[in-house]
Amino acid sequence: MQASDKADSLRRLEIDHVARIALGATLLGAGGGGDPYISLLAARQIYADGDRAADLIPLAELDDEAQVICVAGFGAPTVEKERLFELPHLLHGMRTLEQHLGRKADALIAAEMGGFNALVPIMAAAACGLPVIDGDGMGRAFPELQMTSFSLHGISASPFVMTDEHRDTVLCRSNDNGKGERLARAICMGMGLFCFLAAYPMTGREAKRVAIADTVTLAHALGGAIESARSGKSSIEALMGGIRESAQGIEVARLFDGKVVDVWRSTERGFVIGWLDLAPLNGAGQKVRIEFRNEYLACTLDGKPRALTPDLICLVDSETAEPIPTPDVRYGQRVTALGLSCDPVFRTGSALQVVGPQAFGMDYAYRPLEELGRA
Amino acid sequence: MQASDKADSLRRLEIDHVARIALGATLLGAGGGGDPYISLLAARQIYADGDRAADLIPLAELDDEAQVICVAGFGAPTVEKERLFELPHLLHGMRTLEQHLGRKADALIAAEMGGFNALVPIMAAAACGLPVIDGDGMGRAFPELQMTSFSLHGISASPFVMTDEHRDTVLCRSNDNGKGERLARAICMGMGLFCFLAAYPMTGREAKRVAIADTVTLAHALGGAIESARSGKSSIEALMGGIRESAQGIEVARLFDGKVVDVWRSTERGFVIGWLDLAPLNGAGQKVRIEFRNEYLACTLDGKPRALTPDLICLVDSETAEPIPTPDVRYGQRVTALGLSCDPVFRTGSALQVVGPQAFGMDYAYRPLEELGRA
Repeated sequence: MQASDKADSLRRLEIDHVARIALGATLLGAGGGGDPYISLLAARQIYADGDRAADLIPLAELDDEAQVICVAGFGAPTVEKERLFELPHLLHGMRTLEQHLGRKADALIAAEMGGFNALVPIMAAAACGLPVIDGDGMGRAFPELQMTSFSLHGISASPFVMTDEHRDTVLCRSNDNGKGERLARAICMGMGLFCFLAAYPMTGREAKRVAIADTVTLAHALGGAIESARSGKSSIEALMGGIRESAQGIEVARLFDGKVVDVWRSTERGFVIGWLDLAPLNGAGQKVRIEFRNEYLACTLDGKPRALTPDLICLVDSETAEPIPTPDVRYGQRVTALGLSCDPVFRTGSALQVVGPQAFGMDYAYRPLEELGRA
Repeated sequence: MQASDKADSLRRLEIDHVARIALGATLLGAGGGGDPYISLLAARQIYADGDRAADLIPLAELDDEAQVICVAGFGAPTVEKERLFELPHLLHGMRTLEQHLGRKADALIAAEMGGFNALVPIMAAAACGLPVIDGDGMGRAFPELQMTSFSLHGISASPFVMTDEHRDTVLCRSNDNGKGERLARAICMGMGLFCFLAAYPMTGREAKRVAIADTVTLAHALGGAIESARSGKSSIEALMGGIRESAQGIEVARLFDGKVVDVWRSTERGFVIGWLDLAPLNGAGQKVRIEFRNEYLACTLDGKPRALTPDLICLVDSETAEPIPTPDVRYGQRVTALGLSCDPVFRTGSALQVVGPQAFGMDYAYRPLEELGRA
């Protein structure tokens, strides 16, 4: 998914841009990535405290020898909502990683352009006077550390540092990003299900090769599309038009309109896992189930897959077009499920082993959103 | 518990000494600390490979400015039995901690003088040409990182390093040893329930203040007592006499003789937890239950406490006086339960909060073995 050319003039992220990015990233979060409202509040504070703003640097302009570090929140979105975001704890982790590398960061990048984590590097960059890269490792949100374009292209998440509000720090080095995820998840549980992560140290040259480009600009454009959609009528139509305008070559499908008739949700193993059922507003017709682990991962209509991870399944309020994260779905909500095609990097056979339905323990064989729509 | 003077001539640990220490440490392990047979096999290999032996240094002779490091295996004893002990992985963790400290170890010390972990620093010391300290942090075995005399006297377990057979490393720094334990346990689960630990970096001055002295010598003497006991008749009487001879001021109580009539055991949360029931050989009379989490923690006779952690509850074979670790208890075994009084450091009010019955979620109020015997 690429931001359209007309949106590419964003170079300095003022707080209004950040608010729009937060909104767009909630959509791209596909239900996960944490609540961007919390990080938006934190960003307002950080911006206000120091008359700050972060510079956005396109991947192409990054120096080949630059030290790039990825910063993020890590854990269960349900718990992240209950913890206050405190920048010093995040920066403490980043500094610890810098010390270990023997080198300061020259630019920060997001692990995922979904939810909370879209804003984390912007806040850290604004606070440290560093540029933030216009790109990320997912172009959406995924729940696990190895589910990044960085990892799919062979970049190690290690060494990585995890920190919490007690200033406890864990520096981890694993030869395998899947094992790194298991360790990070365990540490995150030991830290109370949410913590900060500084990971994937890489060079500018590597970032250009492995990151998904222009996704901050894309989130900003999508935020604008939601803002426009919610103020008018036919907000879903308007949102879909806005998405198509914002992102080049993206497939957008209206999967279902209905009400939430059941939700099961559990915070366990460091994730929020569960499912929700939708039924038509008039009660008759197709039954829809959406399964999630931090993010919405599979949408079935009468038991048949209609959209599957790594494609994005987004739930939005049918009236306001406002995206609804997995921790916030509730019985009775009137919602529209949208499907958005994912970045092509995730559709290869080897990528699907990491981010496809079976990687999440689901039996469905992946087929692209476009194909499933024609079935 | 202090080793008697007559045993204090041990200065260089040859393989025969190590074998005797392994045996004595199985008794002191109070059911836990891992299987010393495995580490004894490993020790034989290490000794044979390099014509090596470790020098034993009394606490009192340690240089005040010496860098002391504690090395151990960490995890569930049930799993440790299934993993091969490979010294390079342990040393890799020790080297990582040394690098982080910017200082090489001058002497190694055991976290616990129970089971497997009594031998781990001896093997590492023999391999590196370092002395091993005649002392440890428990004078027995306990399952958790904060349950050491080191911790009770204010020494931080951090920074500590955990390593596994994939050469993955985690360096952890926590301000609180209880939190450090939670993190270490989580990491250990991420590493497959068993890993190596290099922890509790301290100075020689600190070690003299906080370690329990002469416990390697004690384990050696107890091993000798078991060897003598198993070759004669009345082996339990002989063992009890040997324990009293080996350790000054220790209380030894014969809690019960009987057969194992039920065992429940589960490897979960990074521990082996469970209980066993004993009944008299003739089937009639008192019922005994012993609860464990890695170690035997509580022994009740007809529901009334007879011995409680931190006092040692040891299960030995009624015929051979051979100690039986918690993973090895089986239905039908004829066993004798012994109670040994713990080091006085663990009997203070603040220590009991960390190692008393309630620290393990049990409702019993601690009373010393001697008092419970008079009740």
